[in-house]
Amino acid sequence: MAGLEGVTALTFDVFGTVVDWRSSIVREGEALARAKGLDVDWFRFADAWRGQYQPALEQVRSGARPWTPLDTLHRESLERLLGVHGIVGLNERELDHLNRAWHRLDPWPDVVPGLTRLRRRFILATLSNGNVALMVNLARHGGLPWDAILGAEVARAYKPQPAAYLTTAALLGLRPDQCLMVAAHNNDLAAARALGFRTAFVPRPTEHGPTQTFDLKPTGDWDLVASDFTDLADRLKC
Amino acid sequence: MAGLEGVTALTFDVFGTVVDWRSSIVREGEALARAKGLDVDWFRFADAWRGQYQPALEQVRSGARPWTPLDTLHRESLERLLGVHGIVGLNERELDHLNRAWHRLDPWPDVVPGLTRLRRRFILATLSNGNVALMVNLARHGGLPWDAILGAEVARAYKPQPAAYLTTAALLGLRPDQCLMVAAHNNDLAAARALGFRTAFVPRPTEHGPTQTFDLKPTGDWDLVASDFTDLADRLKC
Repeated sequence: MAGLEGVTALTFDVFGTVVDWRSSIVREGEALARAKGLDVDWFRFADAWRGQYQPALEQVRSGARPWTPLDTLHRESLERLLGVHGIVGLNERELDHLNRAWHRLDPWPDVVPGLTRLRRRFILATLSNGNVALMVNLARHGGLPWDAILGAEVARAYKPQPAAYLTTAALLGLRPDQCLMVAAHNNDLAAARALGFRTAFVPRPTEHGPTQTFDLKPTGDWDLVASDFTDLADRLKC
Repeated sequence: MAGLEGVTALTFDVFGTVVDWRSSIVREGEALARAKGLDVDWFRFADAWRGQYQPALEQVRSGARPWTPLDTLHRESLERLLGVHGIVGLNERELDHLNRAWHRLDPWPDVVPGLTRLRRRFILATLSNGNVALMVNLARHGGLPWDAILGAEVARAYKPQPAAYLTTAALLGLRPDQCLMVAAHNNDLAAARALGFRTAFVPRPTEHGPTQTFDLKPTGDWDLVASDFTDLADRLKC
């Protein structure tokens, strides 16, 4: 961990880095399909739903619409996609349950063992675009031992806007260089580094499925590259 | 728990309700006195330090000064009190360590067993005037199993200002009536109830020492009164 002296907190991207959103949405969809007799390509649906994520965030980042939590953006995207994907006949309770599939995403298998070790030496905080309630439920669902749920909603700014990162560091009482941003996404690390954060890349080469073509390798000179969270704990001597 | 159907989260006052600040500050002071050869009445000092708390918060609440985290207010109060109480000869590192005694307060003995049971059924969040970094360190020090650290700093409003309570509920994705405010202070519960929170009083009759004269009993018709956190878990069927 040369160059990482003084790091006090690890701040984590969550969707893709900590949790396997794609497989989890498919699992939730398949359960719904069995219960309701639906015929849906859930992989295609999961990709389409996630595909609306950045455009929806951009509406908020650009100022075209006021601050809106991710749960609301997810719900709007869901309603646009339902008919196209053959998801029909759901009542409000079922729609809300499906929307909250994002609250029940499973962590990658290395996450809980890795975080448990990392927490011995470091403060662990989320620095995600997910809203606080969503992050709290994910943590309870997956047993994620966060010290604090921070990130976009408390900053009222979506990554990669600087306030999301800087507010998180400030709330931890730390300078950016005392925080190590952990993400599977090179652009997240680039935004964090530009503000002074240390950076660790943990690739998740099947986040988008077996044919993923990007974020397979580090594209910047990040402070650390680890194959998963237990390797990250090894490299940080936890 | 008649009348408490629909409660999803418990929100906690921390200083006094969860942690025994007075004994802990005295313990820290006595350790410092041994190391530095000081002669200080640490009970008197602890009461004086805490005595500056509400006036300092009021400066922020009134708008006389901009948002200032509690760590900074504690440090200013400490510097005013040092000489008066015979605390002399400390360097910056030692002063900072003493100020951060507020990050190392011990929980009352019933707190960890009680919270551990309560967390099985409820989301547990801080709703304290302490800043996030202080709350994170208290949780790590005492093993407090919070799901989220919320309250004054994320709302940029000190209790009993409404925003401290309402922002906490909103970040949890809940209506106020889905939150049960737990506090040893009647005025905190009165402020929370006025906004629609449910209320639970847990007296801490020695928070201010053996001669405490207030907050010994509930002064309002709170939804619950429990003798400690394990009794609270019993009453909430956890």
